[in-house]
Amino acid sequence: MKTTISYGMVGGDINAFIGKVHRGAIAFEPNTTLVAGCFSRNLEKNLLTAQTYRVPADRTYASYEEMADQESLRPDKIDFVVICTPNNTHYAIAKKFLEKGFNVFCEKPMTWEITEAEELERMAREKDLLFGVAYAYSGYHMVKFAKMLVDEGKLGKIINVNGEYPQEWLIDELSETISKTAKFSGWRADPKVSGISNCTGDIGTHIEHTVSYITGLRVKRLCARTDYFQNDLDLNSNVLLELSNGASGVFWSSQVAIGHMNGLRVRIYGTLGSLEWIQEQPEQLKFTPRGEAPQLYYRGAGYVGGRAAELSRIPGGHIEGHYEAFANMYKTYMTALLKKANGEPLTENDLDFPNATDGVEGVKFLHAVINSGKNDSKWVTV
Amino acid sequence: MKTTISYGMVGGDINAFIGKVHRGAIAFEPNTTLVAGCFSRNLEKNLLTAQTYRVPADRTYASYEEMADQESLRPDKIDFVVICTPNNTHYAIAKKFLEKGFNVFCEKPMTWEITEAEELERMAREKDLLFGVAYAYSGYHMVKFAKMLVDEGKLGKIINVNGEYPQEWLIDELSETISKTAKFSGWRADPKVSGISNCTGDIGTHIEHTVSYITGLRVKRLCARTDYFQNDLDLNSNVLLELSNGASGVFWSSQVAIGHMNGLRVRIYGTLGSLEWIQEQPEQLKFTPRGEAPQLYYRGAGYVGGRAAELSRIPGGHIEGHYEAFANMYKTYMTALLKKANGEPLTENDLDFPNATDGVEGVKFLHAVINSGKNDSKWVTV
Amino acid sequence: MKTTISYGMVGGDINAFIGKVHRGAIAFEPNTTLVAGCFSRNLEKNLLTAQTYRVPADRTYASYEEMADQESLRPDKIDFVVICTPNNTHYAIAKKFLEKGFNVFCEKPMTWEITEAEELERMAREKDLLFGVAYAYSGYHMVKFAKMLVDEGKLGKIINVNGEYPQEWLIDELSETISKTAKFSGWRADPKVSGISNCTGDIGTHIEHTVSYITGLRVKRLCARTDYFQNDLDLNSNVLLELSNGASGVFWSSQVAIGHMNGLRVRIYGTLGSLEWIQEQPEQLKFTPRGEAPQLYYRGAGYVGGRAAELSRIPGGHIEGHYEAFANMYKTYMTALLKKANGEPLTENDLDFPNATDGVEGVKFLHAVINSGKNDSKWVTV
Amino acid sequence: MKTTISYGMVGGDINAFIGKVHRGAIAFEPNTTLVAGCFSRNLEKNLLTAQTYRVPADRTYASYEEMADQESLRPDKIDFVVICTPNNTHYAIAKKFLEKGFNVFCEKPMTWEITEAEELERMAREKDLLFGVAYAYSGYHMVKFAKMLVDEGKLGKIINVNGEYPQEWLIDELSETISKTAKFSGWRADPKVSGISNCTGDIGTHIEHTVSYITGLRVKRLCARTDYFQNDLDLNSNVLLELSNGASGVFWSSQVAIGHMNGLRVRIYGTLGSLEWIQEQPEQLKFTPRGEAPQLYYRGAGYVGGRAAELSRIPGGHIEGHYEAFANMYKTYMTALLKKANGEPLTENDLDFPNATDGVEGVKFLHAVINSGKNDSKWVTV
Repeated sequence: MKTTISYGMVGGDINAFIGKVHRGAIAFEPNTTLVAGCFSRNLEKNLLTAQTYRVPADRTYASYEEMADQESLRPDKIDFVVICTPNNTHYAIAKKFLEKGFNVFCEKPMTWEITEAEELERMAREKDLLFGVAYAYSGYHMVKFAKMLVDEGKLGKIINVNGEYPQEWLIDELSETISKTAKFSGWRADPKVSGISNCTGDIGTHIEHTVSYITGLRVKRLCARTDYFQNDLDLNSNVLLELSNGASGVFWSSQVAIGHMNGLRVRIYGTLGSLEWIQEQPEQLKFTPRGEAPQLYYRGAGYVGGRAAELSRIPGGHIEGHYEAFANMYKTYMTALLKKANGEPLTENDLDFPNATDGVEGVKFLHAVINSGKNDSKWVTV
Repeated sequence: MKTTISYGMVGGDINAFIGKVHRGAIAFEPNTTLVAGCFSRNLEKNLLTAQTYRVPADRTYASYEEMADQESLRPDKIDFVVICTPNNTHYAIAKKFLEKGFNVFCEKPMTWEITEAEELERMAREKDLLFGVAYAYSGYHMVKFAKMLVDEGKLGKIINVNGEYPQEWLIDELSETISKTAKFSGWRADPKVSGISNCTGDIGTHIEHTVSYITGLRVKRLCARTDYFQNDLDLNSNVLLELSNGASGVFWSSQVAIGHMNGLRVRIYGTLGSLEWIQEQPEQLKFTPRGEAPQLYYRGAGYVGGRAAELSRIPGGHIEGHYEAFANMYKTYMTALLKKANGEPLTENDLDFPNATDGVEGVKFLHAVINSGKNDSKWVTV
Repeated sequence: MKTTISYGMVGGDINAFIGKVHRGAIAFEPNTTLVAGCFSRNLEKNLLTAQTYRVPADRTYASYEEMADQESLRPDKIDFVVICTPNNTHYAIAKKFLEKGFNVFCEKPMTWEITEAEELERMAREKDLLFGVAYAYSGYHMVKFAKMLVDEGKLGKIINVNGEYPQEWLIDELSETISKTAKFSGWRADPKVSGISNCTGDIGTHIEHTVSYITGLRVKRLCARTDYFQNDLDLNSNVLLELSNGASGVFWSSQVAIGHMNGLRVRIYGTLGSLEWIQEQPEQLKFTPRGEAPQLYYRGAGYVGGRAAELSRIPGGHIEGHYEAFANMYKTYMTALLKKANGEPLTENDLDFPNATDGVEGVKFLHAVINSGKNDSKWVTV
Repeated sequence: MKTTISYGMVGGDINAFIGKVHRGAIAFEPNTTLVAGCFSRNLEKNLLTAQTYRVPADRTYASYEEMADQESLRPDKIDFVVICTPNNTHYAIAKKFLEKGFNVFCEKPMTWEITEAEELERMAREKDLLFGVAYAYSGYHMVKFAKMLVDEGKLGKIINVNGEYPQEWLIDELSETISKTAKFSGWRADPKVSGISNCTGDIGTHIEHTVSYITGLRVKRLCARTDYFQNDLDLNSNVLLELSNGASGVFWSSQVAIGHMNGLRVRIYGTLGSLEWIQEQPEQLKFTPRGEAPQLYYRGAGYVGGRAAELSRIPGGHIEGHYEAFANMYKTYMTALLKKANGEPLTENDLDFPNATDGVEGVKFLHAVINSGKNDSKWVTV
């Protein structure tokens, strides 16, 4: 019986924070090892990262193509590959690894174009490979508890949603206040690397996924105002929308909202109850049943069961944060890999990680928002 | 020199909570007396209210017309009239009292139709009468402090606003859950009395006014989804909007949002700072200067000056609430009346109460939201 | 049947904030009139206050003795007197008015010495007069709801209490930082006027009363550290204590705790549940039943009944603050006066205002804390 | 140059949550490996744990004595040992490993008796070994930022502290409510294993350490009420205390405080400012400078520097929790080990982990509290 997992990584050199988060999250499971990688196109960075993480030299690859080719020939080939490169490369890398028969875990947004995402989704399905997309916020225990409350009918029919994700870190990009040359030069601001969107793609899609995960509903149509402030990509976006069941809502995401570090918040209103989850206080979920007092649920409490309880590592009140949410996502994904390898059937809980279908929806949402914003905020179908 | 004020009231019988709030708020000033009224079309209620408030029998009127006519003939006529009747009567009553030369303080929404509101505004201006509209939330000290911060340039250019006003009290109106006959039968739900809107008119306009008061900006255009849930009037409304300076934003108001008592909240984001005010914690204002830590300002603290300090009654931390916000609005209005009567010039601060122009804007906003909602959420100019 | 109330006031001239609060709170009831007063020993201030509040000249008295004597001879004598003078005068004034047969409502601390308080309590009982003491925080709706939860057994046996009342307004008194001459010179800092304590007497007693009101328990014994910082009276006080049922607890009060405006907070822990009330968010009560999620109760919600509901003036979420808490206390007291005058029996709810017994307990508590603090923090019986 | 670290563990079998936290925290550093262990006296659990963590069979020991002896003979001996066994064994195990020349990282409380802790402290110093004690809360970024503010003089002279650590998880131990046999039977409740205290030893010492870490002050004397509720060990403890600089304060810890998961909170008040840190919202620190508005500082913000910034792993607003605080403690400790091994001098920051002296203070504090509680709450010197 297979009990251990080895994986490889494309991107995520030693200076990239999100690569560290992926590796750290996977390391929460003691049966995992990072054994292969192409961490950077820069040779030196690639080697340094490999050395730091004790990846063998012969499995430190100069290109992702070489990595996929070589690994596919090994008897001890990696069980899956993590892709955490800039947005414009996700499609080609994921496609290559799928072609070579590897399971894939990819950063979001999944691809640049909708058709690309759909193609990857189809490939993974046809080849029976597990494809994960790093929407880590649905890995939080209390987001899972929120979903459970909705699934159990505690909210009744959902009638309104309110999601937001304000950050302040790009405030200096506003052209009124600083010169063009002094601006943020990371790849996220470069349309050639980042794609058609900065704010909506980077964080707006997290709202979309988190709401979709909790409610089981999709965004059906929307109209959006996207603010560029003379930059190439959006920095602020307000979206009015209709969900698949007819419910209304608004999503607001911003990278120029002073006073907010990482303010993802979703509020879901139904005919029988409502709930609120705030990412910066992730261990708490506010739930109000109709006609009763608001209740504050906490991870680890006896009254919190289901997936939220199964995935708890430490007693309630001892905070599990961003790494642990990532770790929940990976633990589920890797457990499914092992079960699959061992011929065990996969339950719904085994598949409780963000997948290629979620990835496709994210790309569609993002395109719809940007399209509406560029067309005088007209209504568009997602 | 005139030092005392007498006033009359139309509507606000002894069972109407808002009438009590008006009277209680005015009574904070020791130099005021309620001396006349037509509190109800129901004779018994009218007399009982008059008796309770010790209004003389000869100034307790059976109709507002009689009241306006008779009072106008008295040498000791009232200094102003408070109108707190259902929406459909504001226009006629206000017009009558303006015609007879009285200053007016009217509940919101100011009128049913935009043209009516504009007519009243024009009449008040032409007759040089003071016309107040009961947008009480701008009476709160920390809303005034917020305005001061904006006026002083502490927020820079405003780029995004986020306003909301969720309540839960009409949740039982949702047709999925109760029978039509069991529904709320108050006048607010009756289009013949309430006008074209319930939710947006009753509370959505408070968002619009509060944001407008703080920022000095008006809503220029908007598109809206208004949810009726098989009722005659809206119960939930999401609005995507553009302000007069080009800033974006969303306003959400709801009477069916479980978990919220009276959740008015406004957040204003600028290029140099942001602020947040939450009506249910009215004594606090969160202000974040760019690049600095969020700061929590409290009424009564030494660092809070201006109008917020002038209007403070008790030391900080001893909560001043809804009555006191109303009282601030009336204190300002009545001080202006006295100054005017005594021939003193009126300063900007003297006129710091919601006026007929604000009332007109509210009616325009409300019509725009309902029109958009009824026309497939298309964009409309306010 | 008597339906209206007239009252007089000793102290509370037009510049004294607490006098205004008493008058404003009483004015919430439309059947009340201020008709007599000796507002200040300063003739000018006395007259100005009388004039502002339209108190007749012949009932504006130069001394409280004259006021008590003269009023007692009038057929339309006042129904009760409010005493809001500095601490050192409460005893003599209250005694004089009780001797002349008047009901009394007195500021806290009730007296200087324990024996004085006990004497007033005895006099009021023997003469069958209603004696109120202005512990206004127990007038808050949600404090009453807290008491109801305890009375209903929802907390089980109380095992621990935690009360605090930090303020920052006297921070400049700390001798390290400013010169003696620049210090606060109000009467509260003067032992000849204030009595043996500043901090504990002014605010510590509010903790004691609020806990006692909610739980029905008294402080049995305590030890205390009282910090003077080279001032004549205490500015900070930490008290370890045992309640009458054996429960443990700590009370902390401070006037030099930077960051706090008026931070009264009480937390009560029992074998079946706990509750928390925070004065600066007075409309909320946190209640946690054993084994369940914490619940947030709000004034005005359908699930909040009893006295909290009876005394509500406006819909939940529209904040009722300090004035309204005072008004609740007075409404109860004055309703009891009317019922008594009309020969109606008084129920427990009718007597739900802080009384002379509460006043005595407050003076005892205060003496115990100061005594312990002056005697190397030894344990003393209250 | 030494660049990697190997370590062993005593205790912490696969079912023990805290063992997992230690291992997970160490694993945040990619240059570390668990290579030896005696995880349980139960052979089966010991082997299973070793297998799960891929510890070689020949370094999986049946006893800690054997482990210390054998490891000391190996050329590739472990760099340090983690001790996470029940309290009564810490002393003997730590002593054995120190004798064999190993660096030690030990769970708290450090030992059973004060003299034992002092002996270990002395041994470590004399043998020049690094001894860490697992007071993980001082590993939190914002606790380090708090310390920095104090060190920079931003609080002035500290005059009052208020610490608390309420939990609810042992509420069922209260003898009023359940039978003796149904009670919690973990080792923490057994005096033969746990020592003289449950509540104060397990969590009260965390208050003591966190306050001491931030302020640099020690508890000088105290008096305490400790509540046993007919159990062998304390479940609730209120402590009145004096710090080494004369400041006053109270510490409250409880395992029977309904409504609290893990409510460690410390508030420090000085002559120039105050601060508040709440463990359940670890990324925020409230700081109020005298005369200014309270400010909310967040890990990861540009205005948060020093150790808090150095130890940040991910952008602000992405929550770092309990594992990460542990990881900060270990990262510092292991960096010091490497520097020492490589002959580099150790700076103050290198030694910024809880050490043997902190461990001794914790044991002293705990004894003082229990002694006072058992002696009619008399004052005792720590």
